[in-house]
Amino acid sequence: MIHHVTVLVFLKEGVLDTQGKAVLSVLLHAGHSDVRDVRIGKYIQLQIESPTREEALKQANAMCEDLLVNSIIEEYTVKLRGEEDA
Amino acid sequence: MIHHVTVLVFLKEGVLDTQGKAVLSVLLHAGHSDVRDVRIGKYIQLQIESPTREEALKQANAMCEDLLVNSIIEEYTVKLRGEEDA
Repeated sequence: MIHHVTVLVFLKEGVLDTQGKAVLSVLLHAGHSDVRDVRIGKYIQLQIESPTREEALKQANAMCEDLLVNSIIEEYTVKLRGEEDA
Repeated sequence: MIHHVTVLVFLKEGVLDTQGKAVLSVLLHAGHSDVRDVRIGKYIQLQIESPTREEALKQANAMCEDLLVNSIIEEYTVKLRGEEDA
C-alpha cells in the first residue's frame, strides 16, 4: 500500500533566514506594506510503500534524520496525508 | 494585530519536479528502498499586520498572485495559523 506522507521542514527559531529576508524585502518594495516577516521552508510530499501507517511514518522520520533535514539548523514535522491502494 | 499565515506552494500535477527526482534518487541509493516518489514545494510563513483575519488572508493571496507563486506551473494553499497581539 502506498502512503502519502507530508514533511514540513523549517529553520529553527533564531536561525537567520536569508531567503525569507530577501522575499520580505521584495514584497515590501512591491507595495505589500503590511507584511512583517517571512520565513521559508520546504514542503516535501513522499510516497512510501509500506504495509502499515506506523511503518510509513517511521520510514519518513528515518529519511528526515538521514538526508532531508539538517538537524543543526532545521526542525520538521511529519504527517500522513491519506491512504490509497498501490 | 499580527496574523500568522501559512502558504504551501507546490508544482502542478504533471509538471516534472527535477528537485524531487534528484532527492528520490539519493534516498533510494541511501537504502530507503520503499520510497516511490518525492515532490518538493515551498512552505512559507508570513506575518501580516491587519485588522481582521479576512484582510490578512486577502493580502496573503495577493502576495501569492503577485510574487510568491508562478501560477503557470505551481498551485498554492493559504491558511491562517493563529492570532496574537502585535
